[in-house]
This record gives sequence, C-alpha cells and structure tokens, in this order.
Amino acid sequence: MKLNIAVLPGDGIGPEVIAQAVKVLKAIAMEFNHVFTFHNALVGACAIDKSGDPLPEETISICKKADAILFGAIGKTSYDLDPYAKVRPEQGLLKLRKTLDLYANIRPVIAYEDLLTKSSLKKTQIKDTDILIYRELTSGIYFGEKTLSEDGNIASDICEYTRDEVERIAHLAFKAAQSRKRKLTLVDKANVLESSRLWRRVVQELAPQYPDVKLRYMYIDNAAMELIINPKQFDVILTENMFGDILSEEASVIVGSIGLLASASIGKDHAMFEPIHGAYTKAANKGIANPIASILSAAMLLDHFGLDDEAALIREAVDKSLKLHITTPDLNTKYDNITTTKVGDFIEDFINNPDETNLN
Amino acid sequence: MKLNIAVLPGDGIGPEVIAQAVKVLKAIAMEFNHVFTFHNALVGACAIDKSGDPLPEETISICKKADAILFGAIGKTSYDLDPYAKVRPEQGLLKLRKTLDLYANIRPVIAYEDLLTKSSLKKTQIKDTDILIYRELTSGIYFGEKTLSEDGNIASDICEYTRDEVERIAHLAFKAAQSRKRKLTLVDKANVLESSRLWRRVVQELAPQYPDVKLRYMYIDNAAMELIINPKQFDVILTENMFGDILSEEASVIVGSIGLLASASIGKDHAMFEPIHGAYTKAANKGIANPIASILSAAMLLDHFGLDDEAALIREAVDKSLKLHITTPDLNTKYDNITTTKVGDFIEDFINNPDETNLN
Ligand SMILES: CC(C)[C@H](C(=O)O)[C@@H](O)C(=O)O
Ligand SMILES: CC(C)[C@H](C(=O)O)[C@@H](O)C(=O)O
Repeated sequence: MKLNIAVLPGDGIGPEVIAQAVKVLKAIAMEFNHVFTFHNALVGACAIDKSGDPLPEETISICKKADAILFGAIGKTSYDLDPYAKVRPEQGLLKLRKTLDLYANIRPVIAYEDLLTKSSLKKTQIKDTDILIYRELTSGIYFGEKTLSEDGNIASDICEYTRDEVERIAHLAFKAAQSRKRKLTLVDKANVLESSRLWRRVVQELAPQYPDVKLRYMYIDNAAMELIINPKQFDVILTENMFGDILSEEASVIVGSIGLLASASIGKDHAMFEPIHGAYTKAANKGIANPIASILSAAMLLDHFGLDDEAALIREAVDKSLKLHITTPDLNTKYDNITTTKVGDFIEDFINNPDETNLN
Repeated sequence: MKLNIAVLPGDGIGPEVIAQAVKVLKAIAMEFNHVFTFHNALVGACAIDKSGDPLPEETISICKKADAILFGAIGKTSYDLDPYAKVRPEQGLLKLRKTLDLYANIRPVIAYEDLLTKSSLKKTQIKDTDILIYRELTSGIYFGEKTLSEDGNIASDICEYTRDEVERIAHLAFKAAQSRKRKLTLVDKANVLESSRLWRRVVQELAPQYPDVKLRYMYIDNAAMELIINPKQFDVILTENMFGDILSEEASVIVGSIGLLASASIGKDHAMFEPIHGAYTKAANKGIANPIASILSAAMLLDHFGLDDEAALIREAVDKSLKLHITTPDLNTKYDNITTTKVGDFIEDFINNPDETNLN
C-alpha cells in the first residue's frame, strides 16, 4: 500500500516521540513492502516562532493532501503562564481539527497485564479494563463563540451542539459497541445543561437502531468517580468535547502512565493520529519522554487502513518492550538508562526480527 | 447560642440522612446549652410533586429567615431518563444557590486513617491527603443563558464569568490557603476557554496580596489525572462551577466513599450545608444510606458560627464510628446490619456521653 503521511511533531517532547513513531512506521513499510512517504510540517509554538501563525497555510495544505496525519504535541509553558496572549499554540491544533472536520476522537484505555502494579489504583480494580472513549472533537465549548468585554471584566464561552454533530459520532460509538461488549455509556450533565439534554435526546432516538447495545446515561461528575472506583463497568463511553478531554486524561491513571495512551481523530475525509499527552516542555530533549503513545498512535493509523497484521505487530512489539522493561523512566523501576530512542530502537528491531529480539 | 436552621431534606436518601444530622445537632444543642430550632421545607422532586415548583416561595422565605440551611439531596431517576422534562428537581437547588448568592462551595477531602484500605487507590498514595476545594457555585455554565432552537436541533449553554465573581471566591481561597499549607492551585482550561483566561488573570492579579501563598495553575484535564496519581500535592484547589463539580466528586475516591464528603455553600448573607452526594433514589428507604456526609455538613455548620468545640465533638464521634466499624454497607466489611439510623444513634450517644460510648 502507498500512504502519504503528514508528520506534525509540534512542540516540547513532540519531535522526540514522533521520531520514534516514524522509525517504527518505516520498519513496518520495509517488512510488509509498503511505500510510506512522510511530509513534515509545523504546528503550535514552533510554528508561531517561525511564522507568527500556529497553523500555517502550508501545514494545512500538506495535511489535506495526505492520506493520514501523525501528530506529536503542542503547547509551551510561556503561553500557559500568559493569560493575555492572543496567539496561542493550542489554536493550531484546534483549527486543524476543525478544518479537517476530525469530529470523532477515539481513545482506547487498556490495562496492560505487565503494568498493573504501576497504576495508583489497586491491581484488582483495574485488571482487564478495556474502555473505548468516543470524544466529540470539533464542537462544544471548544469552538463556540468566545467573548471578552472591552474592559476585560466579563468573559464567556458558548457550548453549542447540533443534532447532526451528535448523530454522526453517536453512530460510530454504537457501532463500536456492537463489535465489543455491546455496552454504551453516554456521559453528560443533562440535569443542568441544555446541550447535554440534546445529546441525551438524540442518543435515545438512535438507540432502537442498535437493539443489541445496552445504553445507559451517566452524569459527568459521577462518571469521574465511577471511572476510578470501577473502570471495568465501562465498554464504550460517548461524550462531548470537554468532558471527553477530562475523562480520557483521568483514565490514563488506569493504564499507569499517560505516556501510553494513543488516539485517532477521524472525519469523513481525513484522519489524524496523536498521543493524548501534551508537550511537557520540561521533559523535552532529555530522552525521558515515553514514545509508546505515539507508536501506538501509528498502530491506530495502520488499523485505519485495514493493515491489521502490521498494527498487530507493533502492538506485539510494545507488549514485549513492557514485559522486558524496555521502557522510559515513567514506567521503569528496573533500569534507569532506557531513553526514548532506545524504546523506539527496540520496537524497530522487533519488527525487523520478531523472533529474535530480546534484551541485550 | 440561638440558631434558626432551615432543613431541606429533598429527595431520595435526603430525608434519611438529614434526619441523622438533625438528631446530632439536637444532641449538640442539649450538651452545650444552645437553642437550635428547625424549620422543614420542600425542595426538588418532592416539591414538584406537591406544588409543581422545585423551589416553592415558602421554602425561599424559610431559608431567607434562617441563620443556616441544612440540605439533603435532590434528583429523581424519572427526570434523569427524561431529557424533555421542562421542570426539573435540580432547578430547585440551582435557584436556591443563586437566590441566596451562595457563591463559594467548600468541599474538604480528607483521607481518614481508618479508611485508607477502603479506597480504590493504593494506601501509600492517599495517606495524609488533606485538600480543600473551593468551587464557584453561582455562575459559569450552570447559570449562563440556555437556548434550544424551535426545531429542537440546536442547543447551547453559555459559560460566563465576571471579574467580581472570580475575585470574591479567590480571596476566600487565598485566605484558606494562608491558614493551611499555603499552596493554592487554580484549575481551569485557559489554553482553550476565554472564561478560564479571565480566572487566570484575576487570580494572577490578586496573588501579590498573598505573598506567602504559592500559587500554581493546572489544566482541568491534567488535574483530573494528578488528583488520582498524587493527591498529596494539593492543599487548596480553586476552580469554577463545572470543573469543581467534577473534581470534587472524583476526589471522593480518595476518601473511600462519596457518603463521607460534606460541603458548605457560603455567601455574604446566607450559608447552606450539604453532603456532596446525590439523591440515590435506588438506595432510598433501605437504611443503607451513609449519614456521615450529612452529619459532617452539620459540623461545618457549627464551624461557620465559631462553635469549634461542638464541631470537634461531632468529628470525634465520626472518627470513633469509623474506627469501630459502626458504618453503613458502603464502608463496612465487618458488620452487615449497621443502618443509617444506627450510625446516627451511635454518634448521638457519643455526643451525650463522649467517655463511655463503645460498641455494644
Ligand atoms: C492541548 C489541548 C488543546 C488538547 C485538548 O484539550 O483537546 C489536549 O488536552 C487534548 O486532549 O488533545
Ligand atoms: C444535583 C446537581 C445539580 C449538583 C451540581 O451539579 O452542582 C450536584 O452534582 C452537586 O455537586 O451539588
């Protein structure tokens, strides 16, 4: 297969982890006789530094022409500390999601057998957890009108949803549930928010089309608690943009490190794959960033094109690296010298030679 | 001291748990020679059933005349399942908060030594956790304009904040931090929301007035993760309405049961005290509801009037009940017959006779 992949490393640890994901995709291409071509482009703080624009036209055009996009991370501490900044790195990511209409952000949360003790949760609590979060990504309070009064004393954000926006992602979530444990949980705040009541109505209306799926509702405050108390109760979670942002990052505690969580952002015409972690400016260029989330995002990219064996091989390599403690310091209590690059190298070697790779 | 206390039991388990809190307050009044008078009033689904209004005028007037309000819980499953209902129990609570201008909701999160093993988190993770959450309670997306298009296809909620709204609660949170470990964490989503940037600006401007307090910022998604990974890093958390709702219910996992978390909702002229748990319709009238959150809310009521010894005695009684496993089934693995009333009776007995009470 020929794939034209846009690569947007972004800021902070983005470039380091994305370099590993690209290396792994190249190994896959070699092993399975695919032709993957990569086109780098700027986004985020580094794009602002170069051009004043967090999402330059050139980047948009490279992404539009690509079959898929691999995204690193964006953000920079100086902007976080400056609530007056008008141009912000995050605008690049948000505009990209909107421009390419990447409305469904899919975030798997899986408790790895080899990492059960790494979580701050008790082992028995998390064992066998396997959740798929469907987060709406191109609407809600992220994209509603924002205002700031002239004197700077009143600020507002609108959370708006339309029936169509809810329907399209709800269908995807119902279908995902059908291929899994057939349980769908809609998370909202319908006891308070009008937009949440729209979500609940639309999902309620679609439910009869998926009679094999057991649908239930949960308020976001309750879900934030239940996710920790009893994560195994969940199969597919469907939720709006902001609640999905919160719940999915919270869910990383189940897995043991946010450095492990991958995601796919899917639209009708485009697809982007990105780790759910941020830019962690403080960790940049130290070789300590965990590349697994990016590498698993690359696996989700392969899934997207039906390259199942290829994706499975990456996941096998990742499992092996976890089992052998070839992991960055966020997970490693055994070795203290395993760098970002070493993890990538191990996974690359495994793909080149699945039967021989071992710790050396 | 003479105190006129409005009692709003509300729905579900509300009446059962509030009955215990009232019993405990009566014991305190007896023991310390206070005169507490109690005035019951309706709110929530039970008020809708009676009068069509989740917050009848009479209830407002009883609350306005009272020195303090003791609140149970509201909500009912039939409304949760009906996203078309125009009148909802929650409107009663929200209108009450707004009418009485109860802008600061204060939620302590304390890991009890005797309950460390009840949490789904590892003991070492939570031991010594002591967090005070300041949640803004009368503004934000809860109270911003809500719209639904005529065809029912577009719904919206506005999240709006003014400088004054942020300032008044920020001052309270800074002061609370000064009397504790002098650390204040503002939780927001300033990389996306205009209203969050206003929060960050205002809090940044106030900070020099509290030079002894170490202020830091955290995004809500990150906070939802950090609260579980490392709760001990927090002292006072300050946040807006919706984020506070989510974080505080999530924080209950640290304590071991949401049935333990109390709160105070404070305004310039009024104060209300309520457990953070909901109405749990399913658990109503079974004697299994944990009354501790309500009883500790009563202790916060006493704190509010400077009745420190009285509040301390209630807390001592609660500690004792936990130590002796006089607890409802959510916490009890030793005895299976301790009802809501039995817990209340034990705490009442302890207050009447602090030196003698023991398991019998
Ligand atoms: C960087 C930020 C704008 C982004 C979001 O909130 O969507 C991030 O937290 C994520 O989850 O992808
Ligand atoms: C019942 C509901 C409206 C309420 C809220 O969201 O504020 C509750 O969850 C709380 O935290 O007090």
